[in-house]
Amino acid sequence: MNPLVRAIGGSLIREIAAKRKAGSIDLGLGEPSLPPTMKYLTAALQRAQVEALRYTVNAGDPELREMIAEHYAYPDYTHANNVCMMTGSQEAVYVAIKTLLDPAKDQMLLVEPAFPAYAKMARLEGVELRTVAMEEKADFAFDAQRILEAVTERTRLIVFCSPSNPTGRVMHKSAAEELAAALLRRSGEPIYVLHDEIYREQTYIDDPGHMAAVYPHTIVTNSLSKSNALTGLRLGWTLAPHSIAEAIVKAHAWVTSAASTFAQWVAFEIFRTPGALREHAAWYREQCSAAVGVLNASGFRYVTPEGSFYACIALPEGISSLTAAHELADRFDVIAIPGIAFGERFEGWLRLSWVGPIDQLREGLSRIQELCSAETGRAAEVQRR
Amino acid sequence: MNPLVRAIGGSLIREIAAKRKAGSIDLGLGEPSLPPTMKYLTAALQRAQVEALRYTVNAGDPELREMIAEHYAYPDYTHANNVCMMTGSQEAVYVAIKTLLDPAKDQMLLVEPAFPAYAKMARLEGVELRTVAMEEKADFAFDAQRILEAVTERTRLIVFCSPSNPTGRVMHKSAAEELAAALLRRSGEPIYVLHDEIYREQTYIDDPGHMAAVYPHTIVTNSLSKSNALTGLRLGWTLAPHSIAEAIVKAHAWVTSAASTFAQWVAFEIFRTPGALREHAAWYREQCSAAVGVLNASGFRYVTPEGSFYACIALPEGISSLTAAHELADRFDVIAIPGIAFGERFEGWLRLSWVGPIDQLREGLSRIQELCSAETGRAAEVQRR
Repeated sequence: MNPLVRAIGGSLIREIAAKRKAGSIDLGLGEPSLPPTMKYLTAALQRAQVEALRYTVNAGDPELREMIAEHYAYPDYTHANNVCMMTGSQEAVYVAIKTLLDPAKDQMLLVEPAFPAYAKMARLEGVELRTVAMEEKADFAFDAQRILEAVTERTRLIVFCSPSNPTGRVMHKSAAEELAAALLRRSGEPIYVLHDEIYREQTYIDDPGHMAAVYPHTIVTNSLSKSNALTGLRLGWTLAPHSIAEAIVKAHAWVTSAASTFAQWVAFEIFRTPGALREHAAWYREQCSAAVGVLNASGFRYVTPEGSFYACIALPEGISSLTAAHELADRFDVIAIPGIAFGERFEGWLRLSWVGPIDQLREGLSRIQELCSAETGRAAEVQRR
Repeated sequence: MNPLVRAIGGSLIREIAAKRKAGSIDLGLGEPSLPPTMKYLTAALQRAQVEALRYTVNAGDPELREMIAEHYAYPDYTHANNVCMMTGSQEAVYVAIKTLLDPAKDQMLLVEPAFPAYAKMARLEGVELRTVAMEEKADFAFDAQRILEAVTERTRLIVFCSPSNPTGRVMHKSAAEELAAALLRRSGEPIYVLHDEIYREQTYIDDPGHMAAVYPHTIVTNSLSKSNALTGLRLGWTLAPHSIAEAIVKAHAWVTSAASTFAQWVAFEIFRTPGALREHAAWYREQCSAAVGVLNASGFRYVTPEGSFYACIALPEGISSLTAAHELADRFDVIAIPGIAFGERFEGWLRLSWVGPIDQLREGLSRIQELCSAETGRAAEVQRR
């Protein structure tokens, strides 16, 4: 057996989420609660009736890929050949990591707090991983200088997700420009940047940074999962510069062959419908305001979301996030994801999703408060003894 | 960049197939020409209307997995946990190879002629590959003894596809039993067998061997692509013994996360409809008979298909299969896949798909004959000079 597979753990997020019962307050959700718009699916079905359901070429339907390239209009990424359709952004990230890094010598730099999949993928490929945590005292804001200071001789890929899962922070335009300028000043082999934009349509600030707009060695990963409530469709893509695009298609061809034709047709309908990609954007913006209102009233320290659909709260000193998550699930019927799942420096925090009804967030926070009071009470008791 | 990705080639089959023009006689097709049955797709769409399209757990919908395990009823593979839903059988094979083999020391033994993906996947993972070719004089029949003789100290996985792409041969029950008995007699770590059964519902003999029925260290890969004309749906699965099933799910979880929920619902409809998996079986059997009639009349040496939807013909001595395939595409407007794509020992053969109209096969063979006559005439001319 492959020792890298043997060594790797399963998903802590899924382990906690699996404790959900029928009546649980689920703040663990990593996917939209809105239903998808059926007309895109119906159109794809009608097309299957006429054209059957055959393979597309490995990289995916050229017409769709061209539409995607044109939609984002990143300089130098405007051709169908810059796009490869993938099985969700998960395969997109996996194939990018696999393609770009030589396990014998390259290092991947991961910006934390981070969704755990990136680190797991690096480990699965035997790639050395270095992490750089954004600062708690800055509410985990993306800090270009901090990222640059963590770059070593062997760094060949910097990975981050902005808008961020879990923090909800968005890399500002100025930070993206600062990062790009510094990386461009370097001599030698370029350092690639993987910018996971899966929460792109859930952005609530006016100056988000898009690395591909400012740095030509960027690989963008994205999908329909969050923007259009289509997690179960498993359709994603990479946008990559010409230097690497062909190699990505090669690796993808032997991993999954091609993305689902049906799913690509759904994407085709979405990309040819003006505004379809942002059809849920207004809802998320309103929901975010409501969530911030509830968080304000809760008394917890929290990170104001600039994007994504999570809000993170700080637990009182001395309460382990993993213990809290288990206690919440077992005793309070609340599902929340422990910070430790996103990196050691996010210990002491909980990630709460606010895609469910706002009352659930309010009630969930009140039960978390209850747990915290009990725990700090117990700690004080122990100290008094 | 990862040198393994850099080194790997694209698909020769797709390169030849890409030469197809609108009016071409396409004998290169690797997918059914029948349309899929729409009612399974429609039912899945209706379910999406009610349930939205969320992630399933990584291994896939437990209810579907249980149905699949029960359907095949291989001893020791009868539980949902033995099944993992994948993005086509391509991901199923990829994840199995990745999980089972340690690139630092293990060897994979590939039974040839073989679909090129298996070797490419091994190379992509840096796994040492050994091949064993079935004998031309035996019309490439699966020969357990020959396979066993190729096993080394370091062989940890034997891979074959039966019914075979490209040869159309099926491993007979007796050969599967012979292989299983010999592997079971060995001491030490078990050698795993990957039996790709993707053409299982295109079997035309009465005693096919199913390795999982006789050998407990088998991983079966399969999909809806060929049985139900759903290549573009990208749904496959592994059936694996408990010893390895959990590790397969772990690797799958970080490569693609989960298979498409929509596709799993289509599979659910198919598996709960008696006979649905074999709905095209009678058509293939008749088409096979018609193809054999045409092949008989062609004068070419051919391998009688016992399964799959290919027939292989021998070119006259001295004609390279790759040159022939290019000439056929460029000058005769016939797409046929060169034997060399399936292993060196299959040089001198062409793979012809017979899923299109039988007249196309007849006309294609006649044009191939024309090419061969021209080439052998030219060779005789050269000799005379």
